[in-house]
Amino acid sequence: MVALQQKKTDSLNPLDVLQEQMASDMDAVNVMILQNMQSEVPLIPQLASYLIAAGGKRIRPLLTLSCTALFDGDMKRAHALSAAVEFIHTATLLHDDVVDDSDERRGKKSANVVFGNEASVLVGDFLFSRAFQLMVSDGNLDILRILSNASAVIAEGEVMQLAAQNNIDTTMTEYEAVIEGKTASLFAAACEVGPIIADQPKEIVSAMRNYGLYLGMAFQVIDDVLDYNANREKLGKAVGDDFREGKMTAPVIFAIQKADATEREFWQRTLGDKNQNDADLATAQQLIKKHNTLAQGIEMAQTYGGRAIASLEIIPDGTLKETLKDLISFTINREF
Amino acid sequence: MVALQQKKTDSLNPLDVLQEQMASDMDAVNVMILQNMQSEVPLIPQLASYLIAAGGKRIRPLLTLSCTALFDGDMKRAHALSAAVEFIHTATLLHDDVVDDSDERRGKKSANVVFGNEASVLVGDFLFSRAFQLMVSDGNLDILRILSNASAVIAEGEVMQLAAQNNIDTTMTEYEAVIEGKTASLFAAACEVGPIIADQPKEIVSAMRNYGLYLGMAFQVIDDVLDYNANREKLGKAVGDDFREGKMTAPVIFAIQKADATEREFWQRTLGDKNQNDADLATAQQLIKKHNTLAQGIEMAQTYGGRAIASLEIIPDGTLKETLKDLISFTINREF
Repeated sequence: MVALQQKKTDSLNPLDVLQEQMASDMDAVNVMILQNMQSEVPLIPQLASYLIAAGGKRIRPLLTLSCTALFDGDMKRAHALSAAVEFIHTATLLHDDVVDDSDERRGKKSANVVFGNEASVLVGDFLFSRAFQLMVSDGNLDILRILSNASAVIAEGEVMQLAAQNNIDTTMTEYEAVIEGKTASLFAAACEVGPIIADQPKEIVSAMRNYGLYLGMAFQVIDDVLDYNANREKLGKAVGDDFREGKMTAPVIFAIQKADATEREFWQRTLGDKNQNDADLATAQQLIKKHNTLAQGIEMAQTYGGRAIASLEIIPDGTLKETLKDLISFTINREF
Repeated sequence: MVALQQKKTDSLNPLDVLQEQMASDMDAVNVMILQNMQSEVPLIPQLASYLIAAGGKRIRPLLTLSCTALFDGDMKRAHALSAAVEFIHTATLLHDDVVDDSDERRGKKSANVVFGNEASVLVGDFLFSRAFQLMVSDGNLDILRILSNASAVIAEGEVMQLAAQNNIDTTMTEYEAVIEGKTASLFAAACEVGPIIADQPKEIVSAMRNYGLYLGMAFQVIDDVLDYNANREKLGKAVGDDFREGKMTAPVIFAIQKADATEREFWQRTLGDKNQNDADLATAQQLIKKHNTLAQGIEMAQTYGGRAIASLEIIPDGTLKETLKDLISFTINREF
């Protein structure tokens, strides 16, 4: 048993396990995605497939699928709604890259670099509309309400992040509001849709929503921690994007809380005034190491992870529930 | 009677008349708009009110209101849905200005200049989501379908326009597909919503949809004609925006159809290769005058206007119907 467990940990992480458990459903979602990004306007499928084909973890549709399967819900409906969730996510990625003026996404040149900002904005709008068309075809007003609310909250989170950018006085409370909006709200909605498809009672719906919400919070905090993680650099992954953009994330907010006068000047110059030179990222990483704030971020993510696990308590035990539980610690302990 | 008619024509145009007839409802729509653009994130109402307070003709919500009143529909529902229609329009304006890199909108600096492209993209997304939240609150799935379809078609039209930009071989058929998508589809949806609120039979719903569609086509063709109209310059309005952006619109497509080799070279250099000098707009206007293509555009708009009038035939006569009829010729004959 221990050996088996060991083998599983070595070869398949919980995300892989979930992907295996949901493989045939995920294939159906991919078909829905391909079908629904078609248009008589060739640039739309060209740009959409550029981004979608680049992969990504597909974690949000996977959550909708597994949270539907968990309660024996209608998987055909889950396929369409998972595609809708992924379209909302893809639309926000396209718009984010324009907003952040990004050069790279999923290890490729970002769509705005290849197709231009204009096309990225408009194809984002198209995918967003397609998401709503898919939801309207499903016809459940609760689901429409949940996902239109999530979309509004995502936009609010992104605007909040923009307003906080380059402001080194950003508080942890403000940071948590930003990541709840921009990330956790869609995780929450993706999970909530499942039990609604399966006609589950309110307390189950709300438990799954909370699972998604706290998983999303943990996921984003870890994303922000990894952006300063030197180990990640060794894996050939980009680090320092948030630093260069002056984004106020957990590792720097914690570091600024502990900064002496000289350090505070450093953060003001580099993040506040966006006056950076080549050596600054290394200095930022040193300060973060000195104050041990990556560990602080991981601790924060663990607190959210604990809440996510607690949310699952009222759900009947089973293989899928176990995988969803494992997904939490995997999300927190990942190095990529 | 003739004197009265004359007086009305002198002082109030049909758009003013419609605004007067719908004044108290329009006030209610404005309240809905103000309430629903609120957010805990201050930048959102700041940016939204900057654009919305700048006015604009509010023609789309006015159409939803009058097409509901025409059939004694529930005006309370029409207020919320008119606000949704205006939010969709406002979101597309915000994104358009980013896409076109515009400096001016409604006689003021455009929002992207004042607040930045980033904020314009994100607040556009927010307003778009709010539109869907308003529709979900209304709860009619037909209306949700109509407006989510319109949103997807608008995005398709905008992408099509982007792809046609700087291509002097763009055909009239392609141009008509662009303006049907980017403009007429929302006019059509705005009008279609009214009889649906009022539970009208299919043929009435379809008649009002067609009225909006053809009115929208006429409206956009005239907009494109006015962009080359020297008279408009005398009124202090901007001309030549489409020319500078290399947009392929009716006046130039008709002129290119009639161009000799030298003229074609001119269009290729200025629109195709975007290599323009200060004297080029005047030359473009001369060529358009030489080939009389503004008149050709107006004729095209009149054809659409005729179809819009024909669409109203099956609607019972009344004051409001007369105003909607008058609105067609006003749309075509306006100089601003």
